[in-house]
Amino acid sequence: MGEGVTEGPLTLEELQLATRNRGMPLEGLRYDITPTGIHYLLIHFDIPEFDASSWRLEIGGNVERPLSLSLDDIRSRPATAMPVTMECAGNGRARLFPRPISNPWLYEAVGTAEWTGTPLAEFVAEAEPRDDTVELVFTGADHGVQGDVEQDYQRSLTVEDATRPEVLLAYEMNGRPLEPQHGAPLRLLVPGWYGMTSVKWLTRVEAVTEPFEGYQQAVSYRYQRDEDDPGERVRRMRVRALMTPPGYPDFPGRRRFVVAGEVTIRGRAWSGEAEVTRVEVGIDDEWRDADLEPPVGEFAWRGWSCRWDATPGEHLLSCRATDATGTTQPVEQPWNYQGMGNNLVQTVPVTVLGSA
Amino acid sequence: MGEGVTEGPLTLEELQLATRNRGMPLEGLRYDITPTGIHYLLIHFDIPEFDASSWRLEIGGNVERPLSLSLDDIRSRPATAMPVTMECAGNGRARLFPRPISNPWLYEAVGTAEWTGTPLAEFVAEAEPRDDTVELVFTGADHGVQGDVEQDYQRSLTVEDATRPEVLLAYEMNGRPLEPQHGAPLRLLVPGWYGMTSVKWLTRVEAVTEPFEGYQQAVSYRYQRDEDDPGERVRRMRVRALMTPPGYPDFPGRRRFVVAGEVTIRGRAWSGEAEVTRVEVGIDDEWRDADLEPPVGEFAWRGWSCRWDATPGEHLLSCRATDATGTTQPVEQPWNYQGMGNNLVQTVPVTVLGSA
Repeated sequence: MGEGVTEGPLTLEELQLATRNRGMPLEGLRYDITPTGIHYLLIHFDIPEFDASSWRLEIGGNVERPLSLSLDDIRSRPATAMPVTMECAGNGRARLFPRPISNPWLYEAVGTAEWTGTPLAEFVAEAEPRDDTVELVFTGADHGVQGDVEQDYQRSLTVEDATRPEVLLAYEMNGRPLEPQHGAPLRLLVPGWYGMTSVKWLTRVEAVTEPFEGYQQAVSYRYQRDEDDPGERVRRMRVRALMTPPGYPDFPGRRRFVVAGEVTIRGRAWSGEAEVTRVEVGIDDEWRDADLEPPVGEFAWRGWSCRWDATPGEHLLSCRATDATGTTQPVEQPWNYQGMGNNLVQTVPVTVLGSA
Repeated sequence: MGEGVTEGPLTLEELQLATRNRGMPLEGLRYDITPTGIHYLLIHFDIPEFDASSWRLEIGGNVERPLSLSLDDIRSRPATAMPVTMECAGNGRARLFPRPISNPWLYEAVGTAEWTGTPLAEFVAEAEPRDDTVELVFTGADHGVQGDVEQDYQRSLTVEDATRPEVLLAYEMNGRPLEPQHGAPLRLLVPGWYGMTSVKWLTRVEAVTEPFEGYQQAVSYRYQRDEDDPGERVRRMRVRALMTPPGYPDFPGRRRFVVAGEVTIRGRAWSGEAEVTRVEVGIDDEWRDADLEPPVGEFAWRGWSCRWDATPGEHLLSCRATDATGTTQPVEQPWNYQGMGNNLVQTVPVTVLGSA
């Protein structure tokens, strides 16, 4: 995000972000639907204040019929509910070397919630974008400065991407009104894409005739080789598997201890590109296939499990997923300047104790 | 906690804790009751799995009539609901120099929830602790290793402290069943004390005839001068005020920008010892009194506010509270070996921009 990279230790700046932007503890992978309070969060600026009674969503710009919608207008439409896995594009960033300076995620910037809302496409059809419209620009109420640009958080999608049937104006999460930190009273929800696309605290949708070149689109969220590379846009979630680290941890080190014997290693896998078709578990560099559960939903993760006869000593566990496009997670880091889409395989060192 | 101190930069170990143990973003101070999903969390080991239908709370040890209670047994008693401010004893640890190695909180390990439950005292009375009982030991289901000791998380209270009327067996938070990360299906709630006392995932209450010397009581959570000092037990929350940083932030640095003119600085203050009687706001080293709102509850924080005529340039804001015992927050760090109870005043650098 233009903040630079470092070979040095963690900075106070990164810690300030880590203490406010929470990840999902990895044992949270046990739940099909992540409890609201452990779903990951990445908030660029501050959680904005809002008044639900006066709040409006404006749909305008290059349209025939601008709309100004109250929350009741939106909630009165037929509701769609679906489980959706959402991941931060920066997940895994702090495992990169050199390390891009931004929110220092390790593995945990993911969650699956049941989101309720109404398809955006219906409102777009009513507003009638003119034929020369190329994108819709989504504006959130969070406000701040990034890269010396004062801004409301904004992202765009092509009209085609924005009007897919699964793209929602969402007002509930896990069966309850959105909590403030998840975008209340209304957010965009774009299943399959990294989380930066699902603009929180949505206030405006604007049809435009040129591709949007705002900061979060043209500068941030790009796969860049270096600072001068214009790079490629970050889009859908790359394939990834994560495991619930087995056994029990120490504090503060989070090292894992497992009692020798048969252990079931469990986790989840997802991809924004296509269905996950294979998960392999690595035990000391030997890969074996895991059993797959049905996906929790068309746009949600699927469970997997694998038995392991754990023998006393030190072991290194890992996991990697493959999706229907044939893409498999890398075992060497896919480095880029902003630390985006780092789906390097997870590794979990485990100490197996002799049975008592 | 016996993990040592450092003058060096943040470690991977500390980052692993920071990405799973979330703080409340400071703009969360605007809510009387903190949304569940931004209330702070400190989990020593893993969030345990549980089956509510088979779960039991055992009350035993040195009692005349041991009890084994189902969740329904507890929920069928008259319910008490109250807003309670809870803070981690380690809040502020990462602002200390040298820095104790543990969860690296800056300011944000606090929250106020409305908790619902039933007084513990009634069940203790039914169990009839024998006369030589000195303490009750509370055991949670979270399991791990700390300081080379494998343990379930355990803490004790004197019978007198444990049977105060505000001490609850709590099963709801903010009007809904506890989420797993907050101690589901049942936790202890000890208003006024730092959070380590309110044992989550409570499975057992045991009456004992000698003071409990378990790890979390005798080794951890102590005010120690150095590793060899036995130190003093950490108990009630020290007086503290926090402000919502005014204006808007940058990303990733979280520096604050304010437009020149009249600004209302707002925040919250609390103390586990006595009512907060005064909050002062420091503006470039000049202290002025803030206006106090009524407390949200007997055991909950109170709001405060202070007007400031912000003039262009760099300013340093701070705040400090005083409680009815006459104790005021320190302006120099109250260093101790485990980084406990660091209520050093908050400081917020702000850049005031000329009005447009």
